[in-house]
Amino acid sequence: MAGRKATFFHLSERGGLIMQTLHDNPTIITYGTFDLFHVGHIRLLRRLSALGKRLIVGCSTDEFNEGKGKRTAIPYHHRVEILQSCRYVSKVIPENSWDQKRRDIVKYKVGLFAMGSDWAGKFDELNDLCDVIYLPRTQDVSTTELKELIQRMRVDKVA
Amino acid sequence: MAGRKATFFHLSERGGLIMQTLHDNPTIITYGTFDLFHVGHIRLLRRLSALGKRLIVGCSTDEFNEGKGKRTAIPYHHRVEILQSCRYVSKVIPENSWDQKRRDIVKYKVGLFAMGSDWAGKFDELNDLCDVIYLPRTQDVSTTELKELIQRMRVDKVA
Repeated sequence: MAGRKATFFHLSERGGLIMQTLHDNPTIITYGTFDLFHVGHIRLLRRLSALGKRLIVGCSTDEFNEGKGKRTAIPYHHRVEILQSCRYVSKVIPENSWDQKRRDIVKYKVGLFAMGSDWAGKFDELNDLCDVIYLPRTQDVSTTELKELIQRMRVDKVA
Repeated sequence: MAGRKATFFHLSERGGLIMQTLHDNPTIITYGTFDLFHVGHIRLLRRLSALGKRLIVGCSTDEFNEGKGKRTAIPYHHRVEILQSCRYVSKVIPENSWDQKRRDIVKYKVGLFAMGSDWAGKFDELNDLCDVIYLPRTQDVSTTELKELIQRMRVDKVA
């Protein structure tokens, strides 16, 4: 894929779309919990992997999530195994602190830092090290909505 | 991978293990619903894909499941997209009837029909067409247990 151009859309501060073209084949990095692996995750990972030659995923550890008051249905080592089985993912690393991102970008020679658009603007300060983009999330598919659906299934059963 | 030998364990009628070696690289087929994609699914698919050169997965449609009184959290077209993103899966086809298996085996030149050991013995009559094996399931990981866990999470929250 050497020399291939990748075009992506960058969200501006005011929420507008800025088209941008990458002329090399960067290593891409993203971070997330990836609980209850669903099509929203997969579509994000597929879009990201298409922008470069290698996609690294930082998967939030249970301890890191605990510190944020977040509890997952699937334990960390299972979430990692699921991500590793995904054909769009090249490598999975643990995310266990807020400040590891700069170190990871340098360590893995990352050219593109990418997050879902729910984080828009939050990581702009990393752009002295690499490109930073925020990709749109898949509408109506999220881990929270999925958990709520499964919980309603029991209510229906009881009713 | 031409000429590679694959060894697998076949469950006998009495539940014993029979070691068997495949001398060619067959196309493998399996069927299932694959609701709430979890490590039990992934480990089964990984083990199966290692036995041959191509793994076809028949994914039960919502209509087929409805006929069995089974309701999924994830709709069919999302379950298919998730399976397609799995690096161990070569092709996904719809499973919409009980009697399609013989046709699929012939159509896709299947050498090995494989199911989880919860189906042990149920498909032995297909062995006039191809090898039939039943693989052990991952302990303590199932879609049902996962749904129950998520439902308990709400109860905990309420309590």
